[in-house]
Amino acid sequence: MAYDIALIPGDGIGQEVVAAARPVLDAAAADAGFSLDYERFDWGSERYLDEGSMMPDDGIDRLRGRDAILLGAVGHPDIPDHVTLRGLMLPIRKRFNQQVCERPAVLYDGVESPLRGYGGGDIDLVVFRENTEGEYADVGGREHRGFDHEVAIQSAVFTRQGTEDVVRAAFEAATERGGKLTNVTKSNAQAYGMVLWDDVVAEVGEEYPDVEVERLLVDAASMDFVRRPDEFDVVVASNLFGDILTDLGAIVTGSMGLAPSANVNVEGDYPSMFEPVHGSAPDIVGQGVANPLATVLSGAMLFDHLGEGVAGERLESAVADQLADADAPRTPDLGVDAGTEAVVDDLRGRL
Amino acid sequence: MAYDIALIPGDGIGQEVVAAARPVLDAAAADAGFSLDYERFDWGSERYLDEGSMMPDDGIDRLRGRDAILLGAVGHPDIPDHVTLRGLMLPIRKRFNQQVCERPAVLYDGVESPLRGYGGGDIDLVVFRENTEGEYADVGGREHRGFDHEVAIQSAVFTRQGTEDVVRAAFEAATERGGKLTNVTKSNAQAYGMVLWDDVVAEVGEEYPDVEVERLLVDAASMDFVRRPDEFDVVVASNLFGDILTDLGAIVTGSMGLAPSANVNVEGDYPSMFEPVHGSAPDIVGQGVANPLATVLSGAMLFDHLGEGVAGERLESAVADQLADADAPRTPDLGVDAGTEAVVDDLRGRL
Ligand SMILES: CC(C)[C@H](C(=O)O)[C@@H](O)C(=O)O
Ligand SMILES: CC(C)[C@H](C(=O)O)[C@@H](O)C(=O)O
Repeated sequence: MAYDIALIPGDGIGQEVVAAARPVLDAAAADAGFSLDYERFDWGSERYLDEGSMMPDDGIDRLRGRDAILLGAVGHPDIPDHVTLRGLMLPIRKRFNQQVCERPAVLYDGVESPLRGYGGGDIDLVVFRENTEGEYADVGGREHRGFDHEVAIQSAVFTRQGTEDVVRAAFEAATERGGKLTNVTKSNAQAYGMVLWDDVVAEVGEEYPDVEVERLLVDAASMDFVRRPDEFDVVVASNLFGDILTDLGAIVTGSMGLAPSANVNVEGDYPSMFEPVHGSAPDIVGQGVANPLATVLSGAMLFDHLGEGVAGERLESAVADQLADADAPRTPDLGVDAGTEAVVDDLRGRL
Repeated sequence: MAYDIALIPGDGIGQEVVAAARPVLDAAAADAGFSLDYERFDWGSERYLDEGSMMPDDGIDRLRGRDAILLGAVGHPDIPDHVTLRGLMLPIRKRFNQQVCERPAVLYDGVESPLRGYGGGDIDLVVFRENTEGEYADVGGREHRGFDHEVAIQSAVFTRQGTEDVVRAAFEAATERGGKLTNVTKSNAQAYGMVLWDDVVAEVGEEYPDVEVERLLVDAASMDFVRRPDEFDVVVASNLFGDILTDLGAIVTGSMGLAPSANVNVEGDYPSMFEPVHGSAPDIVGQGVANPLATVLSGAMLFDHLGEGVAGERLESAVADQLADADAPRTPDLGVDAGTEAVVDDLRGRL
């Protein structure tokens, strides 16, 4: 069995982590009796600087029909984020209707949380973030630009269907995991979008009577990701709130360098995309110290998505193993100064 | 000199902390040669349950012209938040054009941060939150309610003037403090409101060439409130982002029970309002264990606002003193089980 994977290393350390993770993914795949056929797309900021666009006009079409997409990172110090992101990452999420962004946050044995009293195994949650609409919809405008009475409108758009997709995915996950779902909104101050969201959670929840639903406001939830992260299991939130909570989840579990993500097209009509949560990190590019583990763990999510759960678990337990081993190499974000290569070499040894 | 203070204890522990803080404020005022003439308004959820509204129709008029307002908390387990908040706290913020919400977060000596490696004095920041518009504007709607194609729009409204007010207040504070301002937006994903905001920061910033401006996206900023809170000085953010960041600021400095706030009408045309950041905490009502210190510290901000800075400092240093004293009484949120009364009695002894 061979899967057709689109590889988009992108910018900065995206290149480094994808190059490093690839042989690890291949090894785990070979072990499990399948292989990955990559097509590599050199899209991103260098292309933008040379040719004026992040990807070719037919970029989206060239990705269509793949079994999955593995993305490194997007972003360049000399190009505004809205150019790079809107030119590459966001169109993939939107055009392939990747409604659900799934981001686990696990505190592994051997990794130090910045929170007192939390050790390996104490935090194990997953955030389901709505991924294609909400607060990041491109709807709004500015009027009377530059005058005293200037006003800007930024409209969040919540569709029942988009909301249902992510809410249902979260209930499904809660059923498989601990049976608890935390719904994060801000309905006391945002009476339209967030109230629709709460309504959808209540309605879909009726189909899952065994899942206990907790409701939190986003300010309290952010605080609770610091105060009691051990009590969360599955969390569901809007695009913006999920964005904030997943960064908090990454930091309380020790490092942005360990946070993977899946951007999932629920119906399976289009490819899903897997990417580390971290960005292109221009400050450490070229030093060979980027942590490849978030990309490896994103690969594990990719394997799960392909139905190759055994290989996915293998990858994840190799990572857990390595992190638990005090003598294993680690990158500087985890407090040791080994390089990217040393980490993946060690990891291959553990597979 | 006597100041005319409107006292709105409100709901739940709001009643308890205001009752407890009042004699402390009076003592500090007497010491400094002024007095506080209170008028007490028994508005809130009990009134709503009896009479159908949180405050009388002429409530706002009865507050107009006061020197300041001291509020306890608003919220009741049996009444939806949007009823209680929209019936009392939010109209005061809006009708009195309290554009700027100022919320300091200080890690006092003797208070344990949940973050490893942070001790007393390590965190000392203040967030300037836009307080009357932005993401909490009451603009939006729902269409096709209950149908598959239902959509809800929630529009954030950013006016140049509202933005300028809070941005200017933040630059002023940065000038008086460490000369550093962190501007938190999400301009890469919200191209209208947040870009106006960034433009205003750039323009107003030209008048403050000595203030160093750092830009952060809200997801990164939330993470950094956990990763490196010691590096923040003055932070400026929208209504929603400020809401989230101030809850994070409260928790990393040890307790929501210590977080004060000022809702400031910049022009001085209307009274400003001072309130603890915490809510009505129905879970601990009537137990006599609510932490009164956030209200006392809000009183210190009220004194500053009245131009009674000496009394404000006295109050704050009495609180700092008490917290630094390992034998002093503390409420359960700080890990000891003394009651509200014991804390204020001890505090009066220190004044
Ligand atoms: C870069 C940005 C647009 C992006 C997002 O908010 O989706 C990032 O923060 C993420 O979390 O993937
Ligand atoms: C209760 C809510 C509307 C309020 C707000 O968001 O302003 C609260 O969270 C606060 O921070 O004062």
